[in-house]
Amino acid sequence: MQAYLDNNATTMIDPKVLELMQPYLTEKYGNPSSLHKFGTETHPAISEAIDKLYAGIGAKDEDDVIVTSCSTESNNWVLKGVYFDEILGKGKNHIITTEVEHPAVRSTCAFLESLGVEVTYLPVNEDIRVTASQVREAITDKTALVSVMWANNETGVIFPIEEIGEVCKERGVLFHTDAVQAIGKIPVDVIKAKVDFLSFSAHKFHGPKGIGGLYIRKGVKLTPLFHGGEHMGGRRSGTLNVPYIVGMGEAMALAQKGLIYEDTEVRRLRDKLEDAILQNEEILVVGKKELKVPNTILTSVRGIEGEAMLWDLNKAGIAASTGSACASEDLEANPVMAAIGADKELAHTAIRFSLSRFNTEAEIDYVIEVFNKSIKRLREISSTY
Amino acid sequence: MQAYLDNNATTMIDPKVLELMQPYLTEKYGNPSSLHKFGTETHPAISEAIDKLYAGIGAKDEDDVIVTSCSTESNNWVLKGVYFDEILGKGKNHIITTEVEHPAVRSTCAFLESLGVEVTYLPVNEDIRVTASQVREAITDKTALVSVMWANNETGVIFPIEEIGEVCKERGVLFHTDAVQAIGKIPVDVIKAKVDFLSFSAHKFHGPKGIGGLYIRKGVKLTPLFHGGEHMGGRRSGTLNVPYIVGMGEAMALAQKGLIYEDTEVRRLRDKLEDAILQNEEILVVGKKELKVPNTILTSVRGIEGEAMLWDLNKAGIAASTGSACASEDLEANPVMAAIGADKELAHTAIRFSLSRFNTEAEIDYVIEVFNKSIKRLREISSTY
Repeated sequence: MQAYLDNNATTMIDPKVLELMQPYLTEKYGNPSSLHKFGTETHPAISEAIDKLYAGIGAKDEDDVIVTSCSTESNNWVLKGVYFDEILGKGKNHIITTEVEHPAVRSTCAFLESLGVEVTYLPVNEDIRVTASQVREAITDKTALVSVMWANNETGVIFPIEEIGEVCKERGVLFHTDAVQAIGKIPVDVIKAKVDFLSFSAHKFHGPKGIGGLYIRKGVKLTPLFHGGEHMGGRRSGTLNVPYIVGMGEAMALAQKGLIYEDTEVRRLRDKLEDAILQNEEILVVGKKELKVPNTILTSVRGIEGEAMLWDLNKAGIAASTGSACASEDLEANPVMAAIGADKELAHTAIRFSLSRFNTEAEIDYVIEVFNKSIKRLREISSTY
Repeated sequence: MQAYLDNNATTMIDPKVLELMQPYLTEKYGNPSSLHKFGTETHPAISEAIDKLYAGIGAKDEDDVIVTSCSTESNNWVLKGVYFDEILGKGKNHIITTEVEHPAVRSTCAFLESLGVEVTYLPVNEDIRVTASQVREAITDKTALVSVMWANNETGVIFPIEEIGEVCKERGVLFHTDAVQAIGKIPVDVIKAKVDFLSFSAHKFHGPKGIGGLYIRKGVKLTPLFHGGEHMGGRRSGTLNVPYIVGMGEAMALAQKGLIYEDTEVRRLRDKLEDAILQNEEILVVGKKELKVPNTILTSVRGIEGEAMLWDLNKAGIAASTGSACASEDLEANPVMAAIGADKELAHTAIRFSLSRFNTEAEIDYVIEVFNKSIKRLREISSTY
């Protein structure tokens, strides 16, 4: 048996998504910017896909939803765009974010710090998230941007985005959220959340890898990251990746349709696995179930190295993660575990399971069996347990 | 009959390329950064693809060839990276480029001008290209970068990149070339050309749209455009687009293998079409055959609007272009025609045919027939002819 429980790292393309993409990988290969029929025959599918993106996040017609190559691009775009629009040679000089953002935000902030920008990294509280009042206290009259993730990739904990949006609106500060781990897991509504910018990546919700988007609220300026031709209303240049745009649109539509299934069936399987994990001794799961997206479990098992556990799982055909796949090769202690103050040993033992709508009950039963056997085996040979 | 002669705008994916991509669109969907077998099983194909990119442009092992989302990204990255590395708060303040660069370079330069950077836009000479001595004369001790395209997208004219590379090396100035229209058409060797940076896009050589690359010579610093995780040696973050990387590698290998066919058979068909076009009265073809890549014809027909001709061709199933597809919707006068000083009427009449290895002799005969009929028809109803 195989069980893929690393859906926060990436997901499989839904076969229905791939089916819609195929004509644009083969005979419908025109450049949408071309005036001839090879170009124009791609337009209906692109329009339909873009409409699905708007619907999926509740954007209004007057807003912009711009296709990018991934949320890393979207995140870099917002932070660097705001640097040019509000900071360099302008009056502001401060960005607020969190200690547990994805590297695409944290590393970009570090780069901006090297240019003289002041960055406040808010720590997470006992619920493993930041609060709107933390944001309120951090805002100064030099603050150009607040960037807070919608849901954390490691723990699955949902941040109070609507409340933070309210604070930013009150204070007249631009607000960006990296919603890459929220889309397809919980309802995402850009209007309710009062965000100015929202980043997403198709491959986290059963679309292809290498395409994503950025929502930009109506009338909000943002200097392009990709200057060039007139694509995407002049906001983001580059020949359109037609098959992936078509795929991302359909993936978004399916993600939206699947929210009830996610909240019931995926949640039920996740809870079953989480409850079974907690039957073991000296083990913890980070974050409260009711504060998390329905698919994620971050667990820490005393006496066991995360990589050793991963190895056992992998041998049994089970895919899990020790931390963010985006940096998992460097084997550092999990930054979320470090941020919540778990002791160093526990921080090294983090294992993340992340489910999707494609997981079955039989897979979860199998994972429970393998996980329990692995704990037993590894603790028997552990030097620290 | 159909005939796609707009290959400088985009190309069809070679079926052999798509075949190699398919497993990574379906069952092999892991994130290459993941440690489990779903992640690691993608590694051999990625390595092989990257090796093909190195081989295709003659890069050395010590150099970097970084996967990007397109040449627009690569071009923006070089120009903005050099801005941060050499200009902002550093000693230099000057960039040299040409009047006929792709908008991804020209618009980015215009953006940098708005930040106070001085940009020299070299005009083209009677051969519709810039010379190494023009570059030499423009270089000052404030020059941070020279950016000159390898081959022009409109005319197909090849620029003297090796000579310009020699000048830049002598003067210690960084040299970038946008080689997007050269790869697969003529031999491209980064070492001979002495370039520091070289941009390319897979969809111009029968790979997928939405993926490209940037060559960076060994030891050359370039601040990332995408900060984030440790992908691509920390130079370009974002989850790897595995299917498209695999596709781009194969497309590059096929492009390299096909150079002789391009230089003989594609050239023969192009020359046949060009010679037939020139049989008409009051018509011109821009650029000398021997200075052009083997696939491109830019022609201008007195008395005929480019769009009207395009419409006739399109009705007959023939795809051509009035200018760069990257900006063709705005219907402005062709910038290359403007740069070469053609009178305004001629600048509005430009039609570009761009062939590929998939075009047949029968298609070319058909295009000649339709083109000649269209000239006759349109001139009969022309108010200016």
